[in-house]
Amino acid sequence: MKSRIPALIATLAALTLGHAPLAARAQTVVVNHAITESEVLSAQKAWCQALLDIGAAHASGGQPAARALAEKVIDAAYGYQMGVVLFKPTLTVNPQTFRTTRDGALSYFVGGDATYPKDSGFALKGWTACEPVNAAVFIAGDSATTMGKVRFTGKDGKVTAVDKTWQFVKDDAGRLRIVVHHSSLEYVAAN
Amino acid sequence: MKSRIPALIATLAALTLGHAPLAARAQTVVVNHAITESEVLSAQKAWCQALLDIGAAHASGGQPAARALAEKVIDAAYGYQMGVVLFKPTLTVNPQTFRTTRDGALSYFVGGDATYPKDSGFALKGWTACEPVNAAVFIAGDSATTMGKVRFTGKDGKVTAVDKTWQFVKDDAGRLRIVVHHSSLEYVAAN
Amino acid sequence: MKSRIPALIATLAALTLGHAPLAARAQTVVVNHAITESEVLSAQKAWCQALLDIGAAHASGGQPAARALAEKVIDAAYGYQMGVVLFKPTLTVNPQTFRTTRDGALSYFVGGDATYPKDSGFALKGWTACEPVNAAVFIAGDSATTMGKVRFTGKDGKVTAVDKTWQFVKDDAGRLRIVVHHSSLEYVAAN
Amino acid sequence: MKSRIPALIATLAALTLGHAPLAARAQTVVVNHAITESEVLSAQKAWCQALLDIGAAHASGGQPAARALAEKVIDAAYGYQMGVVLFKPTLTVNPQTFRTTRDGALSYFVGGDATYPKDSGFALKGWTACEPVNAAVFIAGDSATTMGKVRFTGKDGKVTAVDKTWQFVKDDAGRLRIVVHHSSLEYVAAN
Repeated sequence: MKSRIPALIATLAALTLGHAPLAARAQTVVVNHAITESEVLSAQKAWCQALLDIGAAHASGGQPAARALAEKVIDAAYGYQMGVVLFKPTLTVNPQTFRTTRDGALSYFVGGDATYPKDSGFALKGWTACEPVNAAVFIAGDSATTMGKVRFTGKDGKVTAVDKTWQFVKDDAGRLRIVVHHSSLEYVAAN
Repeated sequence: MKSRIPALIATLAALTLGHAPLAARAQTVVVNHAITESEVLSAQKAWCQALLDIGAAHASGGQPAARALAEKVIDAAYGYQMGVVLFKPTLTVNPQTFRTTRDGALSYFVGGDATYPKDSGFALKGWTACEPVNAAVFIAGDSATTMGKVRFTGKDGKVTAVDKTWQFVKDDAGRLRIVVHHSSLEYVAAN
Repeated sequence: MKSRIPALIATLAALTLGHAPLAARAQTVVVNHAITESEVLSAQKAWCQALLDIGAAHASGGQPAARALAEKVIDAAYGYQMGVVLFKPTLTVNPQTFRTTRDGALSYFVGGDATYPKDSGFALKGWTACEPVNAAVFIAGDSATTMGKVRFTGKDGKVTAVDKTWQFVKDDAGRLRIVVHHSSLEYVAAN
Repeated sequence: MKSRIPALIATLAALTLGHAPLAARAQTVVVNHAITESEVLSAQKAWCQALLDIGAAHASGGQPAARALAEKVIDAAYGYQMGVVLFKPTLTVNPQTFRTTRDGALSYFVGGDATYPKDSGFALKGWTACEPVNAAVFIAGDSATTMGKVRFTGKDGKVTAVDKTWQFVKDDAGRLRIVVHHSSLEYVAAN
């Protein structure tokens, strides 16, 4: 509930002479669950920061530390507990392209799961920066979708841009959760 | 589309040195379909004004003028064209309490329909003022619901307060439409 | 999550010759959070049953038992933990007509709260039956609203019908919760 | 309204002895705007068929015929008239990767627009079959998102599978419209 407090603005209604007995006590409670652009941008930044944090945990505490943090991040930022998540990570291959379960997402980020032998851990690649550059933000009211680039900077300073779509919904506690995530390398035209 | 223009804010993304080729052209289109408190309050005021306008049309042009205007108001402010509207007007009685169809709403406001013999036309009662006093406004994102009093002032200056719930949704053109409307006289405890 | 299990139907996609390597493994996970008519009717029945149960608890265990059960019912069936609830009970009077807080709802159902001195406890009136008779059910997808009569039978067999609007949303756990509740005695035309 | 008719089921409420005066006339109108799985699958098939139809129009009537049909298809199947569409087509390149406007989508499908010089017309490539194979369908109630493969068969019989995310919403007329569309070639791991 705490997270809803900022959205709850109690305003004293205008006192209007002649309506005294009622209006003098009138108070309108306004609760607004609509997703704001600012919340969306914060959620994107938090995703980027979490990716870097998992990498840092790996550098200092190895795979177990990275995995433990990744579990927290997934549980806080994705909507697996609300059902499936429609997740197409950047680098997955058939027949495990889509990671609709929490386990599949965890393996993608930190690897080390024999069920997903091709996963080496996207968060463990030594990224030094992560920056979302939105082409469009569409707020439907109860959900918000972004489409654009996310730019990952590697240890060598090289930037990899991916095309990324995220859809967020607000959970009962007022927190944005990713329910759709489609990421893909940029298309390169053959010459 | 015109009505969406205010909600469409194209902002030039920050130019970040080093990201020049992409970011220099980067532009984020933000489209926000969430309902705002201001839109809700405007829709309530418009409802009140329309009620007074229908009364004025009746005074100057008789029942045909009132009816013609009421049709326009209903088509613009309610969601009958999107399906049914859940409408429980203040003064209807069994077995025609609920007015889920456009005809039923029209008859309630201006009377003159043999199918609804008990209707005398709520908008034709000579109201001189109409004021919403909200107890609560709940914006779910893609819908907004208000609950509170609406105070109607009669020709004799007497104020009648009713308890009213309205739910609004935004149509494809960005206009708020009433899809739920429950109105009732205040309960008076027996002594 | 358990409550979502019925909504999660994993269906094996048709095996199509020629698409073997992919389609042979293809499996579509379908998660459907839309509210169904059946869920709405169940929630209404549960509300009625809870009202009778609170009355029975009162008969056998007095006010404390009624109050304890009412707290459970409110926490399970209303959405107070998601923000406010827009609740206009049948018999409340100014200036406490609207019960947007949990305390206000609890007092209405079982009384015994000095903050709400006019409340005698609607659930303690000895109702022997409670039956919803819907005029209309409107399912928007992520919310559902009903409008109609609810018929309460008293100890003396007399039936009191009220006009009632309920709006339900599905919480993260898949349970319907009341977020709007407007109830009013039937209008009786003066003769 | 016509398109909503299938969704409007008026059912005669059970006649219950003892409640005769009311219940005998009781009729519940049920309007359900939730998106169904069947509607989603139909919309996907319609997209595939439209792609093939544009190709056929091109074969018989040249670019003008293809363009004319593509305009109709876009206006009927996408949500550009409701605001922007978040569209990342399979084969677009920087700085025109994202096609948030109708013109950008049209050029992608049929080319011939000097503003988008890299577009050769995806629908004009001679596809002979198009088949969606969903990994997951997520129905939120008022929107539905699919993620999976779409398999395009070329003139030479070769199949190209792309990873595709579509989000659909229902417009006021009850028709599904694409508001998010992210398509990408499969990732191929370097050896």
